Amino acid sequence: MENKICKLFGIKYPIIQAGMIWCSGWRLASAVSKAGGLGLIGAGSMHPDNLRHHIKSCRSALQILGEAGPEGSKCLPFGVNVPLMYPQVEEIMQIIVEERVPIVFTSAGSPKKWTPFLKSHGVIVVHVVSSSVFAVKCEQAGVDAVVAEGFEAGGHNGREETTTFCLIPQVRESITIPLIAAGGVASRASYDAAFALGADGVQIGTRFALCTESSAHPAFKERCRGLKEGETKLLLKKLAPARLVDNEFSRAVQDAENRGASATELEELLGRGRAKKGIFEGDLEEGELEIGQVASMIRDEESVADIFAELTL
Amino acid sequence: MENKICKLFGIKYPIIQAGMIWCSGWRLASAVSKAGGLGLIGAGSMHPDNLRHHIKSCRSALQILGEAGPEGSKCLPFGVNVPLMYPQVEEIMQIIVEERVPIVFTSAGSPKKWTPFLKSHGVIVVHVVSSSVFAVKCEQAGVDAVVAEGFEAGGHNGREETTTFCLIPQVRESITIPLIAAGGVASRASYDAAFALGADGVQIGTRFALCTESSAHPAFKERCRGLKEGETKLLLKKLAPARLVDNEFSRAVQDAENRGASATELEELLGRGRAKKGIFEGDLEEGELEIGQVASMIRDEESVADIFAELTL
Repeated sequence: MENKICKLFGIKYPIIQAGMIWCSGWRLASAVSKAGGLGLIGAGSMHPDNLRHHIKSCRSALQILGEAGPEGSKCLPFGVNVPLMYPQVEEIMQIIVEERVPIVFTSAGSPKKWTPFLKSHGVIVVHVVSSSVFAVKCEQAGVDAVVAEGFEAGGHNGREETTTFCLIPQVRESITIPLIAAGGVASRASYDAAFALGADGVQIGTRFALCTESSAHPAFKERCRGLKEGETKLLLKKLAPARLVDNEFSRAVQDAENRGASATELEELLGRGRAKKGIFEGDLEEGELEIGQVASMIRDEESVADIFAELTL
Repeated sequence: MENKICKLFGIKYPIIQAGMIWCSGWRLASAVSKAGGLGLIGAGSMHPDNLRHHIKSCRSALQILGEAGPEGSKCLPFGVNVPLMYPQVEEIMQIIVEERVPIVFTSAGSPKKWTPFLKSHGVIVVHVVSSSVFAVKCEQAGVDAVVAEGFEAGGHNGREETTTFCLIPQVRESITIPLIAAGGVASRASYDAAFALGADGVQIGTRFALCTESSAHPAFKERCRGLKEGETKLLLKKLAPARLVDNEFSRAVQDAENRGASATELEELLGRGRAKKGIFEGDLEEGELEIGQVASMIRDEESVADIFAELTL
């Protein structure tokens, strides 16, 4: 019986590379799609014009040779991840439709708002959730699949703090559409465990964020590959919870939180452009370093091809 | 090939019932051992004399018929869980040896201190950890097996906040002795997932805490069986982190923590006997209600036999 996620996206392996700010441009996304998974461009850190450039480059890298002309040309599947709190979300959605992006993952917002628009343009829509209550809302909104992401995941994260181990079986019970597990998946063992818990596919962030084709700064990748257990922490819970690597900035946040700092104080401490500074520019002390707990399992520099070789053994 | 945990303890299924305060006396422990798993008496909530009574009752419930006299009598395997920060730990260990308890699980302390004493009396020793660093220390201290417990678990919990999904593969890589996964395990699906992650057996707390044979108050069990996702939270991190059910007490703790309350203030707020009040006496608002995240998957009143029927299907 064909895997539901492979069938939905037209891919060989039910492995999705998470759309991640400052990590997943067209290079990473196209490498994953070429390897037989689904690559996602992370729109969350891109100006609209830049996103259009990445979409065009991804299409061109994934074009299936022998298929005719730019308008009718076929390409391997790829997608874009759109955080719905993105300020220029309207413009982003317009570009996605104009550029005939086949698959969109939405997150951080209501699946009701954009699903009908995207579906009316033939786009396959997936929404990311951190609870079964929201998974049910996704199914009702007509999305094609759900990503359920556990507490151990990197970046922004659910307030419920439900872990992958507890979340996946609960979401599985609540919905009938295909389910993609995220948070802590990085190896063949965790891939198998996700399926045992009831997932139809997996979304992998951290391991791809640290690989050769990721556009993150080499210093960020190196720091994350040297992490020990317990060196990431879910912080900024009074704003939007984010999992951060221990550094000067994260310790300042933790100190402020221990003193009972308000959301406004935390916003000031965070300032603007912290994630870019850390992940893209490699400022390991003042930057906001977002990565999943499972980074402590990743030791070596590896390519997308290396990762697929291990996962699909 | 025989399962390592079954071989170590002489049991049929690699399923351990966690030793839990106010839940796991001789009734629960002996029911689990009779069902083919390993039942543990939770010493953490017992006065030494009471513990001796529970050990004697457990032995007598598990006596193998036809085997001779009280001194030489054989019984099915069972164990005692001893939190090492227990004030009367010396007395407890003496009783354990006097009463010929075959298996001891230690937690919340160094495995170095008591392992040699227990081993010299022929006791099988297991230690509970929340990181691979401590798992390695356990192996060096000569314990027979390790329980690795994830962030989603109920009760007291590691500071690293590493989830079961991320913890088990990492501990598996670090030690060669048998590994028992704990935190979020409650169903056949999560049992299978724990083995996929590299565990040799599972320790189940929450599901047994809420079953018929548990000595917890019926009101506590009912409240926990009605929990929604996100209704437990890891709190009291400035003291010893504990996973608590949302109620008046836990909200007071959270408010205090959000204001930046000190460890001393939190200690005062906690006071004494809160867990007994909540779990054993059924005060759902003023008590400290400790339970795992996975409680939100448990809906029905069930017996130990029901649980084993589902897990070993």
